[in-house]
Amino acid sequence: MHKDREHQEDPAEPVAGNGILNRRVFLERALLSGVAGAAVAGSGGPDAWAEPLPVTPWMKQPGAQFIAYGQPSRFEAKVVRAWAATPNPATEGIGAARTPLHLLNGTITPNGLHFDRSHSGTPDVDPDQHRLLIHGLVKRPLVFTLEALARYPMESRIAFVECAGNSGALNAPQAQPLNVPAIHGLVSCAEWTGVRLAALLDEAGVEASAKWVIAEGADAAAMSRSVPLAKCMDDALVCLYQNGERVRPANGYPIRLLLPGFEGNMNVKWLRRLKLTEAPAMTKDETSKYTILLKDGKAWQFVFPMEVKSFITHPSPGLTLKGRGFYEISGLAWSGNGRVRQVEVSADGGASWALAALQEPILPKALTRFRAPWRWNGGPAVLQSRATDETGMVQPTRAQFAAERGLRGVYHYNAVASWRIDEKGEASNAYA
Amino acid sequence: MHKDREHQEDPAEPVAGNGILNRRVFLERALLSGVAGAAVAGSGGPDAWAEPLPVTPWMKQPGAQFIAYGQPSRFEAKVVRAWAATPNPATEGIGAARTPLHLLNGTITPNGLHFDRSHSGTPDVDPDQHRLLIHGLVKRPLVFTLEALARYPMESRIAFVECAGNSGALNAPQAQPLNVPAIHGLVSCAEWTGVRLAALLDEAGVEASAKWVIAEGADAAAMSRSVPLAKCMDDALVCLYQNGERVRPANGYPIRLLLPGFEGNMNVKWLRRLKLTEAPAMTKDETSKYTILLKDGKAWQFVFPMEVKSFITHPSPGLTLKGRGFYEISGLAWSGNGRVRQVEVSADGGASWALAALQEPILPKALTRFRAPWRWNGGPAVLQSRATDETGMVQPTRAQFAAERGLRGVYHYNAVASWRIDEKGEASNAYA
Repeated sequence: MHKDREHQEDPAEPVAGNGILNRRVFLERALLSGVAGAAVAGSGGPDAWAEPLPVTPWMKQPGAQFIAYGQPSRFEAKVVRAWAATPNPATEGIGAARTPLHLLNGTITPNGLHFDRSHSGTPDVDPDQHRLLIHGLVKRPLVFTLEALARYPMESRIAFVECAGNSGALNAPQAQPLNVPAIHGLVSCAEWTGVRLAALLDEAGVEASAKWVIAEGADAAAMSRSVPLAKCMDDALVCLYQNGERVRPANGYPIRLLLPGFEGNMNVKWLRRLKLTEAPAMTKDETSKYTILLKDGKAWQFVFPMEVKSFITHPSPGLTLKGRGFYEISGLAWSGNGRVRQVEVSADGGASWALAALQEPILPKALTRFRAPWRWNGGPAVLQSRATDETGMVQPTRAQFAAERGLRGVYHYNAVASWRIDEKGEASNAYA
Repeated sequence: MHKDREHQEDPAEPVAGNGILNRRVFLERALLSGVAGAAVAGSGGPDAWAEPLPVTPWMKQPGAQFIAYGQPSRFEAKVVRAWAATPNPATEGIGAARTPLHLLNGTITPNGLHFDRSHSGTPDVDPDQHRLLIHGLVKRPLVFTLEALARYPMESRIAFVECAGNSGALNAPQAQPLNVPAIHGLVSCAEWTGVRLAALLDEAGVEASAKWVIAEGADAAAMSRSVPLAKCMDDALVCLYQNGERVRPANGYPIRLLLPGFEGNMNVKWLRRLKLTEAPAMTKDETSKYTILLKDGKAWQFVFPMEVKSFITHPSPGLTLKGRGFYEISGLAWSGNGRVRQVEVSADGGASWALAALQEPILPKALTRFRAPWRWNGGPAVLQSRATDETGMVQPTRAQFAAERGLRGVYHYNAVASWRIDEKGEASNAYA
């Protein structure tokens, strides 16, 4: 339906209900004139150099000296990770720090704000003492120092990491008053650089009987997951760098496993050991946790790739609309199975849809930013986004998701999410 | 020449002098076995779970609690920007902080390490007081608050910014004992997100007589440059975000101009004013500075795009080779005129060349990581890289560059650079 309307003559006319405009508006910029309407006419005229701008205090004296490692402006102190630790008598440091994606834009997550789900806090790993062991069903067990790993060829890729429990709050029976980080803040995206795990496994010499690789971290929880050998031989990276610099402590310094597209905690942080085996190890984090609980109490185990998903970052709770008129609906889409093919947006709770513009480059297993022009009429609206990946998978509705999985599970929740906009321009989490 | 040798039968055979291997080695990984040779055989055997790894102190107790804004590991305290301020009685805060590119990998520069060239320090701009004025030859002078700018459609692009004076140290008559940041550290790369300047100019209504746009910063130097209107209507962005978060103070918080590919200081930081004019303003930073001084004392003015360029980050001074054997030669290439088409590497000072592998995605006006396999025989070597961009421009040799420009200028230096490797594996800056 929306495909026909895409080619209508006047891109200023809505292409879906409740004010969604044609994404061609971004190309035919003149239509934005007066639409945004937030600019104020100056009084200075063509020859006024400094009028009507006041000369601010920071223009009157030299600014701050250079610093060795830069930090955000003090005026951005609110742009931080919201974190919560779960009290646990057995293990301290269980919990998560969530990326404030509603306050960010683009697709790269700056290293200070990458989400962090830990099972026993962040260990203070000395890289000179750290080792990576590859053993089990291999011809030559190997131990790597950091210096040894640095001798191997490197590879870089921009990839998302998403906790399997991300967005699980949307599977509660009633919509909770939560914002973007509280619901969707366990996904982030960075440029990761490291050594192809396949190269290290080749060097160790994989035995024909090996089918799984048990990856273990050097945290006090010794967080461990079983990874199919095929994934390790495909696109897995032993990462040394995150957005150019060494991996951050909370993300696995000095080395983390990257399994592009696979659920977050399989991307084992503080990686110290890879054991090749015939069968999975059935660790705590793949039996009692990180399985997909169904309506009947049974569970799916070993569902690895994160399914196609999207959500809207702007507008969202806390980002109040300031009066009717033009807004950009913007958000993030991704799929653990490859590239995002398309994202549709709706302003009427899914009654009608229009194609959003996707920011190039669209990379596989990475966050993709989508944007759609919207003219808010000042009335109620329900904003939704729906992503389709290159394998043809489409985000289900919440009703479809609940019908298949029920309301008991929190893992791998990927249904269409909704923000309700009220007449004051406030956004809130809603089930629609 | 190297193109024929690319398709030779055995990729383990050198394709260029002094040990440069075929980039196909990266695909046929088995060839790396024993080449890197830095791994140590473990003693534990297939069933030893923890042997021979010691249990380190950080595995014996829970790690650190979550933090709101993450920082690098304390063990990476050496990975900082080297900075120097130039004493000046008229204006304080002149100088530069240089990115330690030899300690980074990939192509994204983390925000804390983006280079920073300032003409009067870093102002402490209050975003609520900051304004952007568009005036001069426009129908409707406009003033934008940050909140107003946020109403416009956004666009993201990964782009390098390079100071026009970057690598100018290589035009000294004798090779100086300098490392990567001291020579090449005034280039960085980030994902920038902002509003197309063309959309704002459309809204202001550009007069037919306008040909230039004078961009002015809100620092005490009021750093100003003249930009051709055509560039402003092409791919210029008024940036609010850098790698996802708000632009860092040293890079122009709260808004900077991004002119993809153009010399660094035209990407005006702390952007406060854009005046449309018929002619350039002839500001200090486009007359007495940032012009290209020639042999005869004349200078080229208004040479905007940074020319095709590359250099090797690994190995480089300070990164000593540890014994003969396999190494990856890795570095960065870019062009202000578009994409990098190819990078060649040489280990014999340019006598023979082989194609390097380029990391995808290869984006226009962004840093591209190149990598080439090398087997060091333990003898002297001179490592070079030579980039070609999609317009066909190739980096000149130093001799060609000097013949055209002489040795007086420091701007837009883009000749092939050399590291001399001695028999101890030490790298040093060399003219070859």
